[in-house]
Parts: sequence; C-alpha cells; structure tokens
Amino acid sequence: MKILVTGFDPFGGESVNPALETVKSLPDTIAGAKIIKLKVPTVRYQSLQVIADAIAIHDPDVVLSIGQAGGRSDITVERIGINVDDFSIADNAGNMPADDPICPDGPDARFVTLPIKAMVEKIRKKKIPASVSNSAGTFVCNHVTYGVCQLLATKYPGKKSGFIHIPYLPSQVVEKKNTPSMSLELLTEGITAAICAIVEQQDM
Amino acid sequence: MKILVTGFDPFGGESVNPALETVKSLPDTIAGAKIIKLKVPTVRYQSLQVIADAIAIHDPDVVLSIGQAGGRSDITVERIGINVDDFSIADNAGNMPADDPICPDGPDARFVTLPIKAMVEKIRKKKIPASVSNSAGTFVCNHVTYGVCQLLATKYPGKKSGFIHIPYLPSQVVEKKNTPSMSLELLTEGITAAICAIVEQQDM
Amino acid sequence: MKILVTGFDPFGGESVNPALETVKSLPDTIAGAKIIKLKVPTVRYQSLQVIADAIAIHDPDVVLSIGQAGGRSDITVERIGINVDDFSIADNAGNMPADDPICPDGPDARFVTLPIKAMVEKIRKKKIPASVSNSAGTFVCNHVTYGVCQLLATKYPGKKSGFIHIPYLPSQVVEKKNTPSMSLELLTEGITAAICAIVEQQDM
Amino acid sequence: MKILVTGFDPFGGESVNPALETVKSLPDTIAGAKIIKLKVPTVRYQSLQVIADAIAIHDPDVVLSIGQAGGRSDITVERIGINVDDFSIADNAGNMPADDPICPDGPDARFVTLPIKAMVEKIRKKKIPASVSNSAGTFVCNHVTYGVCQLLATKYPGKKSGFIHIPYLPSQVVEKKNTPSMSLELLTEGITAAICAIVEQQDM
Repeated sequence: MKILVTGFDPFGGESVNPALETVKSLPDTIAGAKIIKLKVPTVRYQSLQVIADAIAIHDPDVVLSIGQAGGRSDITVERIGINVDDFSIADNAGNMPADDPICPDGPDARFVTLPIKAMVEKIRKKKIPASVSNSAGTFVCNHVTYGVCQLLATKYPGKKSGFIHIPYLPSQVVEKKNTPSMSLELLTEGITAAICAIVEQQDM
Repeated sequence: MKILVTGFDPFGGESVNPALETVKSLPDTIAGAKIIKLKVPTVRYQSLQVIADAIAIHDPDVVLSIGQAGGRSDITVERIGINVDDFSIADNAGNMPADDPICPDGPDARFVTLPIKAMVEKIRKKKIPASVSNSAGTFVCNHVTYGVCQLLATKYPGKKSGFIHIPYLPSQVVEKKNTPSMSLELLTEGITAAICAIVEQQDM
Repeated sequence: MKILVTGFDPFGGESVNPALETVKSLPDTIAGAKIIKLKVPTVRYQSLQVIADAIAIHDPDVVLSIGQAGGRSDITVERIGINVDDFSIADNAGNMPADDPICPDGPDARFVTLPIKAMVEKIRKKKIPASVSNSAGTFVCNHVTYGVCQLLATKYPGKKSGFIHIPYLPSQVVEKKNTPSMSLELLTEGITAAICAIVEQQDM
Repeated sequence: MKILVTGFDPFGGESVNPALETVKSLPDTIAGAKIIKLKVPTVRYQSLQVIADAIAIHDPDVVLSIGQAGGRSDITVERIGINVDDFSIADNAGNMPADDPICPDGPDARFVTLPIKAMVEKIRKKKIPASVSNSAGTFVCNHVTYGVCQLLATKYPGKKSGFIHIPYLPSQVVEKKNTPSMSLELLTEGITAAICAIVEQQDM
C-alpha cells in the first residue's frame, strides 16, 4: 500500500509551513504502508497539477494532504471540500479569485473518502487534541481538498483522499498575540496516527 | 545561587497539573544555579505554609512558582499579585472564599521582584511563545504570587520571587473544544530559559 | 414577491432562540415583499416537513431560514448546506444521529441560491457586523440549509433559499463567560437589510 | 449626591470611542444622583489632570471612569489599578512609556473603592452581560484607574472611584474579524444600572 502525503510551502508572509515540516518529519513507512512525500505550491490549479503528476507517477492508493490552519488549537480532519475559490489573501502566484468555481462542471462539494472519525479517534488515543472540521475554508487548502476528490472520483475511482489542517508551530506565534500552536513532535505523531487509521481501514 | 521552583498539584477535576510536571522535568542545575523542586497543594494558606517551610529549610535566593492557566496559549510571566482571594471554584480543601483579603494588613498588591521582561525575552529567543500577564487571577495562583512577595518583603528582603502561568498539556485538552495547549518539552525548555534570565540578572 | 422567513424554537437548554425572536420582530413587508413568518421545531425531518408544508400553502418566491449560532460575534450568511446529520447534542425530539445522510440520494452538498455577498454587504452598510460562513455545522441548522435547497432544486426549481446564523441575545450570555451577543434591535435591522438585498437581486 | 462620569476620546485608529458615546448618552440624573459628564483625552497624565480639574470644580462624591476594551464581550467592572504605564501602542500624544511608574511614591496598586460586585449584579439583572475584571491593562485606562484612586486616597479621602471597561460598538467591528461588540443602547442601560448600584451603596 502506498500513501502520497502532501504539504504546502509557506504562504501569507510566513517563512515556514508546519504542513511541509510535518510531512518532511514523517517516517518512510507507517504501519506497513510506503509514504511518498510531496511539496506542493500554495497556488490554485498549480497545486492540483503537482499532485496529479505525482499520482500519475507513483500510483498511490491514498492521497492525504496537510495544510496550515493558523489559529486552530488542534489537528482537524476535514470532512468536505467545496467547489469554490474565494481567497481573502493572495496565493503564492498572486491569484485572488472571488467566488470562482474550482471545476465549473463539478458538483457543489465532495465529501473526502478517508475514515475521518477513525482518524480523529486514533490521534486522540495518542493524547493529542484532534477533531473533525466541517470547513476547509475557501483558499488553496479547500482547493486541494475538493480538487483531489474530484480528480479521483472522475479518473481514479479506486483511490481515496482526504485533508488534515494543523495549527501553527510554536515558533510562528512568538510574535502573535494569544495564538495557539502545536510542536512539530506532536504534529508528526498525530499525522502518523491518522495514517495508521487509514491503513487499518484500507486493510479491512 | 539557589532557586526554589514550586508547582501545584492537580485541581479543578484535572488528573495532572502541567506546572508540577514541568517542575519535575527541570534539571537540577540551570546556568549554575541549584534548582530545589517543591510540590505545593492547591489550597489557600496551606500552599503558602509549604513554601514558607521550604524557604526556612533551603534558604533560596529566589522563589519561582509555576501554575496552570487553562485556556492561555503561551507561557505568561505574571507582573503582580493582588491581596484578595475570590475563588470561582473550590480549592483542593474545599475553600471558596469571596473577596477575602489574603493578608489583612498587607498592601493592595505587590509587583513581583523578578525581571519579567527579560524572562519573556529569553523564552521567546528559544522560539517559544511567551508574554507578560497583568493578572494572576484571584485563585490559589494569585494567592501564592501575592503571599510569597509579601512574605519576602516582610521577612526576607534580600530574596526575590515571581510567578509563571503555563497552558494546559495537550493530553488535558483532548476532550476540550478549541483549547490551546503546550507540550511538556516546550514548557520545560521555556521555564529553563526563564530561569536563565533570572540567574543572569542576579549575577549582575 | 413573497418571502418565507423561518426561525427555530429554543434548544440546547436555552429558554429563548434569537432566531425566532428576530423573525417575530420583522415587519410584515420589507422593500415591497410580503414576509411570511414561520416557527420551526428544532427537530430533524420534522423541521423540513413544517417548511415544506408552508411552501405548499404559501407558494413563496424565497425561503430564508434563521438559526442561532451560539459563540459567533456577527451575523453570518451561510454559503452551503452539506448532506449529513452529525449531532453533538440531541435535537428537541431526542434525535442524535451520527454521520447520517439527510437525503441518501442527494448530492454531498448544495450551495444556497441567495446572493450571500450582497446580503453581507447590505448588513454591513447598516454598520452591523456580518460575514459569509462556509459551514452551517452538522446540526438541525445545516439540516434545514441543505434540506430546503434539495427540496427546491428537485420540486420548485424557480424558488430560492438560504440560511443566516445569528449570535446569542445578550440575555442568553449573562451567565456565560466571555461569550459574544447581539441585541434584538440590531439582529432585526440586520436581517431586514439582508432581505432587502434578496429583493433587489430578485427584482433584477 | 454628585457623580463625575468620564469617557475617553477615540484612540488607536478608531474614529469613535464607545466610552465617550455612552457617557454622552447617560441621563443627567440617575437614581436621584446628579451626573456630571466629562470627556477625557487618551493621554497619560493629561487625562488625570483633566479629571483632577473637574473634581476641584464640581466636588463630586464619586468618580466613575469608562473606557473601551476592544475584544471583550461584556461590560467589565475593574477591581484594581496598578502603578505602571507600559503601553503597547502610543497614546494620543505619542507617549509610549515602558514599565514606568505612574506615581513613583505610590503603592504598587490600589483597589477601586466602588462596590464592584453589586455593580455587576445590577447590570446582570437588566439581562446585560457583565463581570468583574482583575486587570485594567497597562495603558491609559489603567493609568486613570490607578491615578484617580491615588488622588482620592491622598487628597479626598471621602470620595470614591472606579473604572468600567466596555466592548466595541457594533459599527467598530464591521471590518474586524470575529470581534464581539455591544449596542449603545445596552451600554447606556448597563452603565446606568451600575450607577444605580453605586447610589444605593452610598445611600446606606
């Protein structure tokens, strides 16, 4: 079993993205599954193209994307991606679309196909705070959540995908007021636990 | 140089107190200063008595107390203790005083005597979020902040004291919604950095 | 032009629901449109049935539902309803479904068909805080957001619907700690402004 | 009985200060007490001078100052002022002192002398959210809280003073994200209730 795990590059003035750092910190094998790591640009469409290319090359069973959700306190497993780009800040190529469909012919939204409740449960068993989220926003994170679900549904019906949002790293909030964070060690342990839940479900 | 570092036992239904865990995790020597560790009951007056006894026995140069501030995101170095016990929950002996002076003959409040800005700066240099707080509340944490300042001012004018509030541990917020936390590793590193700032100032 | 405006009855231990109070406070005509007011039970399916019955009787052009979002600071116009009931508290009939589709044959989600950005803009012009929300949750509010969209899409393609979440009333948060609220006067003025935006768009 | 009620002018880039608006909206007599209204500049020392001048002219029995606490959800009655100016933004004259005592010869802090719990209770009876606060910050609001207490304690021992922080007005948060506010009507009703509690206590 192969799992493609993606992490975005830094955006919004940050010099680091906890998602990319966490992906880099993952072991190469988790619960027997081979982990393929991919850095993804925080740019609409280009992000999806980079992931589509990696799927074509590596033929993974699962695509799990990780993104930064600055301000959240815990690891949040997203339930759904919605078919709209509505950016309140520019992406890394300067795009700032408003109420623009990601895929004009696609459905309004797509539920992710990974076992979100089992993933949350597995992270919590490690004593790491986690919960289900019902919105991945309308920025590039949602773009990838929806876009990968749409790609798999239309081209690779046997593959599954999902998205996990993670808090800032502590170093990112030193100058921010009252902003929660999570250490790289816990983030790595949490994402590893989530991947274990994915493997267990796929194996059933 | 000797520093007495105190940590409260768990209260308010928690099974662990990050303050006590952090104190236990500190090395026995920091920047050349001997660290004396003390567990303190989360009980008004009794907490102060235990600290007063330890001061009498160990004759420390500095008393640094650590307490849990559930809901805060960063390590907060307290600026002041105020002369009032006004508990919204019971302490571990069932006391729940309302607007009761800690020391009827004492001043309304006392500034701590440790270098709070230097302590925050030193923690932040380790890339760990920290800030000054202007209120230690009106529960046992403030009781100790004020009470120790008052004790030193009246009996041991050469000694200094202060208080640091720390966030929940991640394990404590697994079942809490949207609540920030900090790992024991970062807490320990942060408190160690704060103690370094204290030693540097004392050495000047 | 006729607009059916619905408000839920109190739930979750509250004795009042700001949505119902606001609906009751609306004038009978707004910008020339007739306002039909409907109280809706906070119960899955039953809520939708009551609305479906009212649509059959009154034949409105627009269905606008209002619900309480305790903890939010501003009036939030929902963008989408998703096809899942996943209640963390029981509804008023004791139902507590987990990850249950609202409509097993329906799409994963449906965008509301009202002009959400124009509605937000119109409320803000009245100097009342408002924003777009990308999640109506997974309780009865989302059930109605999705369910009404699904009903109109399949049975009444010419009609439009949407959902607005509003904060607690001040009286509801007197005993809650650090919880935002909004006065009934502002809520009524805000919802009236949103309805003006709906009428303007329909008239175009 | 005469009560001097003060409100600051706008600061920090705001075009309005809810404190000043609320003070202007108060009736001229509350529970039989004459209300003297005073606009105060958000400038250290100058604020205190303006209040001291008004005390000399009007000889009030009570001085109640009102200030904006952006981000708070409810009306907060302050318990204490502390003897330090430590501004994170400049006041309206460009002053930005760091850790500077307000009154070098004064005590570290002074409890306000108004009945804070009775004031909170009276506001809550009007179904308006209110609570006691243990920190007025370290900006001009605290400067006035401490400074007036110190002035009265040293020059006018028979007079009493206190401070109330209030949330933003709704119009101030239209462009701010997730920020609580309170309508001018509720603020005025809340401060009026607090003044009733003051009059009742003074009459006893």
